[in-house]
Amino acid sequence: MLILNAFLMTTGHHEASWRYPKTQPERAHDIRHYQELAQLAERAKLDAVFLADGPALRQDIRHRVHSAFEPITLLTAVAVATERIGLISTASTSYYEPYNLARLFSSLDHISGGRAGWNIVTTAGLAAAQNFGLDAIPAHQSRYQRAREFVDVVLKLWDSWEDDAIVNDTAAGIYADDSRIHEVGHVGPEFQVKGPLNAPRSPQGHPVLVQAGSSEDGRGFAATYAEAIFTAHQTLASAQEFYADIKQRVATLGRDPAHVKVLPGLSPFIGSTEEGARALEREFNELTVPAYGLRQLKGLTGVDLSAHPLDGPVPADAFGDVESVEGAQSRFVLVLDIIDREKPTIRQLLHRLAGGRGHWVFAGTPEQVADHIERWFTQGAADGFNIMPPYLPGGLADFTEQVVPLLQRRGLFRTEYAGTTLRDHYGLPRPSSRYAESPARTA
Amino acid sequence: MLILNAFLMTTGHHEASWRYPKTQPERAHDIRHYQELAQLAERAKLDAVFLADGPALRQDIRHRVHSAFEPITLLTAVAVATERIGLISTASTSYYEPYNLARLFSSLDHISGGRAGWNIVTTAGLAAAQNFGLDAIPAHQSRYQRAREFVDVVLKLWDSWEDDAIVNDTAAGIYADDSRIHEVGHVGPEFQVKGPLNAPRSPQGHPVLVQAGSSEDGRGFAATYAEAIFTAHQTLASAQEFYADIKQRVATLGRDPAHVKVLPGLSPFIGSTEEGARALEREFNELTVPAYGLRQLKGLTGVDLSAHPLDGPVPADAFGDVESVEGAQSRFVLVLDIIDREKPTIRQLLHRLAGGRGHWVFAGTPEQVADHIERWFTQGAADGFNIMPPYLPGGLADFTEQVVPLLQRRGLFRTEYAGTTLRDHYGLPRPSSRYAESPARTA
Repeated sequence: MLILNAFLMTTGHHEASWRYPKTQPERAHDIRHYQELAQLAERAKLDAVFLADGPALRQDIRHRVHSAFEPITLLTAVAVATERIGLISTASTSYYEPYNLARLFSSLDHISGGRAGWNIVTTAGLAAAQNFGLDAIPAHQSRYQRAREFVDVVLKLWDSWEDDAIVNDTAAGIYADDSRIHEVGHVGPEFQVKGPLNAPRSPQGHPVLVQAGSSEDGRGFAATYAEAIFTAHQTLASAQEFYADIKQRVATLGRDPAHVKVLPGLSPFIGSTEEGARALEREFNELTVPAYGLRQLKGLTGVDLSAHPLDGPVPADAFGDVESVEGAQSRFVLVLDIIDREKPTIRQLLHRLAGGRGHWVFAGTPEQVADHIERWFTQGAADGFNIMPPYLPGGLADFTEQVVPLLQRRGLFRTEYAGTTLRDHYGLPRPSSRYAESPARTA
Repeated sequence: MLILNAFLMTTGHHEASWRYPKTQPERAHDIRHYQELAQLAERAKLDAVFLADGPALRQDIRHRVHSAFEPITLLTAVAVATERIGLISTASTSYYEPYNLARLFSSLDHISGGRAGWNIVTTAGLAAAQNFGLDAIPAHQSRYQRAREFVDVVLKLWDSWEDDAIVNDTAAGIYADDSRIHEVGHVGPEFQVKGPLNAPRSPQGHPVLVQAGSSEDGRGFAATYAEAIFTAHQTLASAQEFYADIKQRVATLGRDPAHVKVLPGLSPFIGSTEEGARALEREFNELTVPAYGLRQLKGLTGVDLSAHPLDGPVPADAFGDVESVEGAQSRFVLVLDIIDREKPTIRQLLHRLAGGRGHWVFAGTPEQVADHIERWFTQGAADGFNIMPPYLPGGLADFTEQVVPLLQRRGLFRTEYAGTTLRDHYGLPRPSSRYAESPARTA
């Protein structure tokens, strides 16, 4: 069964969406906006809502709406306004402490009755580093080394209470069997964490682990830990290569490839005719501010094209070697590929990235969008999609009301939730605690 | 006007409350339990709900119920189920990063429409230290030095967007006036934080700052930063001394003493007769587990009395010098005072602490509870109280339904909320941003 997440973002994913007359940028600061979007997605039986995050202000605040909300608290507010839909938040391993992060996601899993997912990122930007005492971005590889140890610690903490640790024997005065609550005693190069966590094991065993880096380090990390992977591809061939590579790596590590879901991003402009959909996309692109796009491109790739004429070609020597990139390497390669393949002017390149920052933007009829999804799904390129509506709520409503019914009719997507947790929706097993078979503590 | 907070804790504040037949310990893991308690408090027009916290599992999990929830996410779930009541969470300056904490509380303030408060603690326990890479508790004084710098950074971040930074000019493509969004450029011994925060200024300007340490370091810290202070006192004289001292320190620092609210804890057992109330308290004390009480005492004071007979006296030499205490010094002194004044057996001491861990436990009729509150309020001992119901929800319902109406009839407590924010309820001014008068940035 196909997986479909709604990737939510203020007024929408297109960078000019806040200027589009059918969005309400002032609602970016109204929690009900996000509750209503999640309810819309839940009515269509989508698997989850997803939020991006980074602990720094984007440099582009002059030209783009920004939400007032930190994503874990935002999703907590969404959790109590919904019943079934999964709740996935991004959080950085570079700038959190594992104990604090383990608590926050465990709490979200408890509050939501087992619907939490953590999108693990290492955070590429300099601005974030400078908010946490650093003068420079930590090196790509060292970020991933820390991420591995961070996730190890968090998983141990989430396992530290066995599922049956709570006894609640009021007559005997015994609330918990403390032989089933375990110190984790982690000692590593980055972290020393004694544990246990100060919360019982959460409904899903632990929140679903999601990952979004597609570099070499990112793929290795994902193959080890991820249960779902968000990824950006511009062509079927690129997505198929990634899909096959990930499943192969997962199998090599002895994990079941069916338990690692590959989910490319897709930003659909939907119209009753293909021509209408394309006109809608053009309307959005015409609302873009070039200064914003140039800064986004610089943030995405480190390359500054602002000194070159907008309607001239991308200078051949502007992009250096991927090995030297300490930011997000996979997105750097993706932008290079677009330039090689399409030979765009700078303005055309900015428009190509304005809708999805490298994710696939598709303009077409509901049938064409459904066809695209079916093709990638059946041809070994995707287990599902992260749907990135260009504008909200209209773009999400178009998708849920016009595309989802087609996918349901084709037998590709559920018409009712079969379970209650995000693991249920994704078809992932509930992990058992690593401590469950251990002998009772002597303490 | 009197301030009344409801200090919420799983099944209640008495350590044996989870064994009392009218509580439901399994609801400690049901978010609706907390939403309903807050709604009960809001119907009585209480100022706020309050949650304690520490980033470690209590050592006493065998004999006492424990909540599954991290408090900021818990209060977020409460925020969207209530409309007016304030939401105060404890969080530690020793084990968070300022940027992350600033975001979480800002987000709660945005989500709740201006009802967030942060109870600033430095966290005394060893278990917490060991969850964050430390082998020992940081020294008392260095914890407070870090706390001061931590709060300075957080306040700068909360100020970093001026109130009118958002322009939202869709026609011109200008969302925010970035000359009104400021880097904070903090460089200090503990933290380097560039900023700005990635969220607009929150409805209250910033969340209300609450503080709960009553040691010498704690009083100095509170006088500088706190807008409300939670404190524990066993006698009117002790509360009056503290009240006068804090107001004097605040005035000396050039702040308005009326803008720092002193709020002792009060745990009321309420009965239709005094005899009935006392019988209820005895019933709870008889449900206590001595092993739990001894461990609590050790956690509170560092002193282990488990080798001594329960019905014998507290050994005169068991308690050392307060100066050597690296944990919570003020609570250590309070326990010593009880021993000096009342000469209890060890069992009697454990019972004295079972209801409020040093906070005042009062058994009486609704009139007697109201009289006590009025006396402390009118005699310079308190601006209000942190009400700590011995059991939940019954103990809170008894207070809101039987005591609050008496206080309202006496003109001491509101019958309707006059405003919408926690600052409104407490009578605190909305701070302006320190950057509001600054010239436009040249960038």
